[in-house]
Amino acid sequence: METKQQLRNRLKSIEGHVRGIERMVEEDEYCVDIIKQTLAVQRALEKFNSIVLERHLQGCVTTAIRSEDAGERERVITELLQVFETSSKI
Amino acid sequence: METKQQLRNRLKSIEGHVRGIERMVEEDEYCVDIIKQTLAVQRALEKFNSIVLERHLQGCVTTAIRSEDAGERERVITELLQVFETSSKI
Amino acid sequence: METKQQLRNRLKSIEGHVRGIERMVEEDEYCVDIIKQTLAVQRALEKFNSIVLERHLQGCVTTAIRSEDAGERERVITELLQVFETSSKI
Amino acid sequence: METKQQLRNRLKSIEGHVRGIERMVEEDEYCVDIIKQTLAVQRALEKFNSIVLERHLQGCVTTAIRSEDAGERERVITELLQVFETSSKI
Repeated sequence: METKQQLRNRLKSIEGHVRGIERMVEEDEYCVDIIKQTLAVQRALEKFNSIVLERHLQGCVTTAIRSEDAGERERVITELLQVFETSSKI
Repeated sequence: METKQQLRNRLKSIEGHVRGIERMVEEDEYCVDIIKQTLAVQRALEKFNSIVLERHLQGCVTTAIRSEDAGERERVITELLQVFETSSKI
Repeated sequence: METKQQLRNRLKSIEGHVRGIERMVEEDEYCVDIIKQTLAVQRALEKFNSIVLERHLQGCVTTAIRSEDAGERERVITELLQVFETSSKI
Repeated sequence: METKQQLRNRLKSIEGHVRGIERMVEEDEYCVDIIKQTLAVQRALEKFNSIVLERHLQGCVTTAIRSEDAGERERVITELLQVFETSSKI
């Protein structure tokens, strides 16, 4: 699993790409090239999300499901379904 | 949670809608209307998947994570990540 | 571009796969395998949609945009944006 | 249609949200909250893309399709299909 610093580096890189798209807009670059860059940023965010979800599954979800608190188990499962449904709508 | 029969009814309905799209193609209906029908079928499949995932989380995932088999825990978590990554690519 | 018959064959195949998923539910097959089959059907629908969109772009969109009717041009562009926004939400 | 400045403001806001997610990671905030913020940024990028696509359809696509250059018409249609296929995979 990635470290916190590796996750932050991913976000720094994404931030830089967003600034790059700003320059493309400023310099009236070809629309399709701008769209393609934006889609690349979205893929990078998707990858970031997948790594965070892995940390969550290994951490909080495992702890909650192994606990004797049925309410906690239900909560983390409901949350996972929300994340699944929202992310498949992006 | 939905019963097996309710899940099967959802699939029967989806099957019917796919046949409906076939008729639209056969009768040269407007392309955008065909595309919109297809997107509706995809949403229905997404909803079906979400219900199946809920059953999976409540069943196999909970059983595996509460077990003493670290390998099983790792397996179901890896599977969940694959489902998450594939579904966000549709 | 694909013929009408080729498009219909794609839909027939999709229909068959949906029935296959029904059998998997009936026979209590592993949830993740059911989800993976459903995601494959969604990808097939996506491919079908892309072919229909190509026909639309080559046909109605080109005819409308090359016409002298500004209203028609606006209509097909608005429709394309709706298709783009809806499909990126699936 | 939005002005260039409005598009740039959208990107500035997205950039700010990405920095916000960095802080959440730094402060070990709850994983699901981080994921939800990232999904919100993806939706904002999707909206940005839709506006850029509208500009493209109104501009370059209309100019190319109304031209007598069949090759240009084919090129912009192929590009639109690529954008459609890539964005539905995000």
